[in-house]
Amino acid sequence: MALIVQKYGGTSVGSPERIKNVVRRVAKYKALGHQIVVVVSAMSGETNRLIALAKEMQAQPDPRELDMVVSTGEQVTVGLVSMGLMQEGLKAKSYTGAQVKITTDSAFTKARILSIDEQNIRTDLANGYVVVVAGFQGVDNEGNITTLGRGGSDTTGVAIAAALHADECQIYTDVDGVYTTDPRVVPEARRLKTITFEEMLEMASLGSKVLQIRAVEFAGKYKVKLRVLSSFEEEGDGTLITFEEDEKMEQAIISGIAFNRDEAKITVRGVPDKPGIAYQILGPVSEANVDVDMIIQNVGVDGSTDFSFTVHRNEFDKAMDILKNQVQSHIGARNVVGDNKTAKVSVVGVGMRSHVGIASKMFRTLAEEGINIQMISTSEIKISVVIDEKYLELAVRVLHKAFDLDQEPA
Amino acid sequence: MALIVQKYGGTSVGSPERIKNVVRRVAKYKALGHQIVVVVSAMSGETNRLIALAKEMQAQPDPRELDMVVSTGEQVTVGLVSMGLMQEGLKAKSYTGAQVKITTDSAFTKARILSIDEQNIRTDLANGYVVVVAGFQGVDNEGNITTLGRGGSDTTGVAIAAALHADECQIYTDVDGVYTTDPRVVPEARRLKTITFEEMLEMASLGSKVLQIRAVEFAGKYKVKLRVLSSFEEEGDGTLITFEEDEKMEQAIISGIAFNRDEAKITVRGVPDKPGIAYQILGPVSEANVDVDMIIQNVGVDGSTDFSFTVHRNEFDKAMDILKNQVQSHIGARNVVGDNKTAKVSVVGVGMRSHVGIASKMFRTLAEEGINIQMISTSEIKISVVIDEKYLELAVRVLHKAFDLDQEPA
Repeated sequence: MALIVQKYGGTSVGSPERIKNVVRRVAKYKALGHQIVVVVSAMSGETNRLIALAKEMQAQPDPRELDMVVSTGEQVTVGLVSMGLMQEGLKAKSYTGAQVKITTDSAFTKARILSIDEQNIRTDLANGYVVVVAGFQGVDNEGNITTLGRGGSDTTGVAIAAALHADECQIYTDVDGVYTTDPRVVPEARRLKTITFEEMLEMASLGSKVLQIRAVEFAGKYKVKLRVLSSFEEEGDGTLITFEEDEKMEQAIISGIAFNRDEAKITVRGVPDKPGIAYQILGPVSEANVDVDMIIQNVGVDGSTDFSFTVHRNEFDKAMDILKNQVQSHIGARNVVGDNKTAKVSVVGVGMRSHVGIASKMFRTLAEEGINIQMISTSEIKISVVIDEKYLELAVRVLHKAFDLDQEPA
Repeated sequence: MALIVQKYGGTSVGSPERIKNVVRRVAKYKALGHQIVVVVSAMSGETNRLIALAKEMQAQPDPRELDMVVSTGEQVTVGLVSMGLMQEGLKAKSYTGAQVKITTDSAFTKARILSIDEQNIRTDLANGYVVVVAGFQGVDNEGNITTLGRGGSDTTGVAIAAALHADECQIYTDVDGVYTTDPRVVPEARRLKTITFEEMLEMASLGSKVLQIRAVEFAGKYKVKLRVLSSFEEEGDGTLITFEEDEKMEQAIISGIAFNRDEAKITVRGVPDKPGIAYQILGPVSEANVDVDMIIQNVGVDGSTDFSFTVHRNEFDKAMDILKNQVQSHIGARNVVGDNKTAKVSVVGVGMRSHVGIASKMFRTLAEEGINIQMISTSEIKISVVIDEKYLELAVRVLHKAFDLDQEPA
């Protein structure tokens, strides 16, 4: 008998029919003698409907009030799932985030979980109930309803699994696991049986949007065994996200090819090469709430250097505007240039720590196809390059092949 | 400066545009220096949508889970109203029933309010906020979300007005006040400037569905000044529901004609005329949750009598079934007869206490039109008759005229 937390996303609970599928799966696990906590998102489309209503009332909806409105989405789902479970003859009980209670800070629309009181859930589980918890939401110390931001239901699932010391946290999505790359780009892409947390973090932040990155961090921190599964297939073990690297090292050097087509690059040229300059460039950008991804600065020549970074394509104009009007003359840079027709491709794998030549193999493979590399950035377990977006699919395909990702590892 | 509680029903907040109308009205009162608490229902149609979803999951939705789902309707509205008020430059803050907190018993779907903690609302009002409270809902002592049942938002409004000792509780609906009778039946029906609580109770329970009857009882008990107004008209003082009878006595003897076309009558004939017989007849009926309205038993002849009562038309078959199969032979009654094509008409007015001849005038008026009276029941301030439903409109019209209700009182 195990204690399992199952998290179902909006698509999995998008209609009464789909909720009944969830109910059947839960019933199957319950029949095996497991204790089950179900964490659910709002029915697909519901959160967007509520946000649209809010925007009709207020151009920039007040964050506290927006959370009040949006949090109803999951509240509806937990009630419906509980009813479905009862209809199947199971004992079930639903909880909002506030009822659990999942205490968060007061950063409305992007709150962070501070603590979880798991006592009621434990009692209910001991009494044979399936406990159904609203994902994505919590309550601050003043009793205000908060939300964790988009995708926060994954985080709720992992946090509850951590609080309960659950045996496994199963994340049900519309894909059946984590793939070596996007199968829509490379039909030979293969589902990974396991992936390490670190690799998953790189894959997630690089655009393999299977799991919310905060959830993965959380799982790593609290050593929660995380499994990604399809909610639309009866069979299959999905992908297990492990924190034991050893299981992994026997296998492939590279786990996957991640990519992101929303990357825009910006270069500030002729920057004085002196302390504090990076902050003077990026401070105003981050103050305007523009997220910066890759940052590159090369060794300077004659007291001057070039400073490059990438931002989301949607924020390219905003970032360019800040740099040209607030930063350039202030720091005495020569000029600011940018390109929003770029994309990022990364090879990811813990194996590269102990294998040389991964970078050179990657660069050679791209060169053979005539793909120019515009920027390079590396970490211990990934190498990312920025290229012209028109070569993106080609790059992903040739790299997938070059690293034998279409083959099961020996 | 006054403290005013304004309650808006589902139709008044049925769309973002209509919520903006509510916002403008609140802003107008706020500009006059008043402190305002707004109590709102779910957007029209929303509660029914949620109930339909629930019924897709469970044939008889679990009451606790149903309240979990249905209570989201008002939660959405409070957030939207607050946003609208902020968009107009006002300070606003929303509360769910649980956040206030409005403590109820645990009778899910039909909970009763036990207490209201008005401290947060007082603090917010003192700080210049418009406070927006979700109607219809509360929280029990275990932290479960409860609802007060259909129309419960009126009760929330009155209960909050009572807790705050508000100067007035304004109920905004889709009619502009309480009328002498239904204007769809009698075009000459006139809006009453005032009506007493007792009259309002009789009018409400008899089918003038302007206000939920529990709300009126609550207002009477706590001496809350209640005013019914239209949310679709800018001007007009609506109808004030008073507990000072004196204001009223100067005016008309009869305040209005109430009616109900859903009344079905049942007679148990040849009932032994002995103690305990009424309970033996009605006990099984009420145990089956069938509500009984009028009850009539005449003086017996030769140790035997006839016992009559009325039920809602929808429950006629159920009640007949119980009487024929469980009661008739048990008590030794001769037979059970019924008619579900009947209707009830009542004249209501505190003035009849001090005026004789109201009943005879009513009976004569009906007789002149050839309308047979099947049952009669009276209280201190009303006289009700059951008639064939086909005469209902005619009866209401002639009584309205006979008691000069189309004329402003002198």
